Amino acid sequence: MQKTIGYAAHDHHSPLVPFRFERRDPMPTDVQIEILFCGVCHSDLHQVRNEWGGSVFPIVPGHEIVGRVAAIGSAVTDFKLGELVGVGCLVDSCGTCPDCHDHQEQFCDAATFTYNTPDPHTGRMTYGGYSNRIVVDQRFVLHISDSLDPAAAAPLLCAGITTYSPLRHWQIGPNDKVGIVGLGGLGHMAVKFARAFGAHVVLFTTSASKIEDAKRLGAHEVVVSKDSEAMGKQRASFDFILNTVAASHNLDDYTALLKRDGTLCLVGVPDHAHPSPSAANLIFKRRRIAGSLIGGLKETQEMLDFCAQHHITADIEIIPIQQINQAYERMLKSDVKYRFVIDLASLKRDAESG
Amino acid sequence: MQKTIGYAAHDHHSPLVPFRFERRDPMPTDVQIEILFCGVCHSDLHQVRNEWGGSVFPIVPGHEIVGRVAAIGSAVTDFKLGELVGVGCLVDSCGTCPDCHDHQEQFCDAATFTYNTPDPHTGRMTYGGYSNRIVVDQRFVLHISDSLDPAAAAPLLCAGITTYSPLRHWQIGPNDKVGIVGLGGLGHMAVKFARAFGAHVVLFTTSASKIEDAKRLGAHEVVVSKDSEAMGKQRASFDFILNTVAASHNLDDYTALLKRDGTLCLVGVPDHAHPSPSAANLIFKRRRIAGSLIGGLKETQEMLDFCAQHHITADIEIIPIQQINQAYERMLKSDVKYRFVIDLASLKRDAESG
Repeated sequence: MQKTIGYAAHDHHSPLVPFRFERRDPMPTDVQIEILFCGVCHSDLHQVRNEWGGSVFPIVPGHEIVGRVAAIGSAVTDFKLGELVGVGCLVDSCGTCPDCHDHQEQFCDAATFTYNTPDPHTGRMTYGGYSNRIVVDQRFVLHISDSLDPAAAAPLLCAGITTYSPLRHWQIGPNDKVGIVGLGGLGHMAVKFARAFGAHVVLFTTSASKIEDAKRLGAHEVVVSKDSEAMGKQRASFDFILNTVAASHNLDDYTALLKRDGTLCLVGVPDHAHPSPSAANLIFKRRRIAGSLIGGLKETQEMLDFCAQHHITADIEIIPIQQINQAYERMLKSDVKYRFVIDLASLKRDAESG
Repeated sequence: MQKTIGYAAHDHHSPLVPFRFERRDPMPTDVQIEILFCGVCHSDLHQVRNEWGGSVFPIVPGHEIVGRVAAIGSAVTDFKLGELVGVGCLVDSCGTCPDCHDHQEQFCDAATFTYNTPDPHTGRMTYGGYSNRIVVDQRFVLHISDSLDPAAAAPLLCAGITTYSPLRHWQIGPNDKVGIVGLGGLGHMAVKFARAFGAHVVLFTTSASKIEDAKRLGAHEVVVSKDSEAMGKQRASFDFILNTVAASHNLDDYTALLKRDGTLCLVGVPDHAHPSPSAANLIFKRRRIAGSLIGGLKETQEMLDFCAQHHITADIEIIPIQQINQAYERMLKSDVKYRFVIDLASLKRDAESG
């Protein structure tokens, strides 16, 4: 077994603290990774505080993992020692269902998430990337180009693929007008991808202070969503709107902005349901409200390769893991541009003091 | 001007009574139609009682119109005297917007509905098919095969196209499992079309008494939606579900039945909003909730031709117009299999007594 140190929450109302545990020894198809950086996703905090229910404590969050290969199982041929790799939200799936067959492992009913899911190999709960190492089946390990900054690449593994996948699935391209709702960890990646795909990009934000930054990130237009006149001018003009805001809000404000056959795509699960969307708003222009969940492994690799080719990474603020609890508080106030990334080298302090 | 007699509501709480008014004389592109039959749509009652707001009284409902050509304008070449024709929910549109260009006139912002809409030619409100004649621009008149029963063909003009269009738009065919929610005027047509397109058809109803009839109409399976065990067995198995029930109900019961990438399509506007659908239900299988509105003129003609070829009409109960108020009461109790159709020959009694 692999002695490991990480940061864990031991119940839903306490701060994360150092936690020692063991990873499995690499099986023949496993890759063992020394973790360099791990992004801090809002869903980490939701699960640490058990806001979705179902959290099993202790919980070690983290599913935006970048590291280097430290060991490989005997059947691993596609990864070599020292290579820069990533792990996202998934570490296993059944491999045989229609979703797995179609490279959509994220929808597999037996998918194993990177943390807070029973590990079919050990029976214990999975522990995530707020730790110094992880052991993952090769099917769920991704190649990351050395041309990408490893810290800024970490958020690609969740925030990146969560926004890349729907923009690809709905085939967004140069003839499309695309709206992005919210300029946070997901939204800022969505702006970059939509712009890279050639779309006309409009960023919707509640905060006028974000206008300049949104334009710097690639938005052609920025609309302050509280400005009803500005919203009215955008009416029935969008092919696709990617809504990255999970907080409960009125979806009708956005469905009304879709052209005939346009889609409003949700990627966040709200704690409290959104107000019921207007059926008439959907019927009178044959509009759709859809959902999208991260992306499959094949598409995640495609996204990482696209990012390497187009020099796309997240805008980040690096923190030592000892600041994770303060980072959560700042994240709740949207006080981050646009993703915290933990430098796991900082874990050595805890390892040495243990 | 063309002297016309029909039945009108003079306010939102009174029964329909005989009403004399005038139609415009045929303009060069107009077709004048002597009405034989007119179907009774639930939206007639909604507007008679002003349940959607916006009703202008007196209101002459009716948009499932079948009749014979009695006169044509000088520029009409595609219709001849005596021919069997139909008029649906639309009698005009701008003709130049992207929706009109794409033969989707139902989405044109300037569409003129068959009743209760200002007529751009006269400035007065349009009056519908509960009357002995109507004058309509040729672009909005449809050919009906003499092989179809004219009374049973009338509901095709709204209930027919409203269900045909989404099944075609979402390309339903032999490899699809399709759900139809509700067995009323729309639902019974949806079952017939989905079956004719080769899909595996499952009818959802709250009433066990409808099981045998649903099978007779073409459903392969019938699920009583109150039976949670039967609903559970259908989980994540549908490509497409057409929801014909406008009454407020929990959409999650049906989104949960969709496969990955499946669509729940609404065709009815509820008086009170449906409970807010679960975002997680959409996100975790990339499902969609969509709306659909009747259909364009080109597609309506295609539907009527398909019906002639496949011997499809509505199951109807013919009534004289003097029974329209009782028919509304019965419709509210779902006491009709499956559409009332008014025989406008009955209007002669009122015409002679006037």
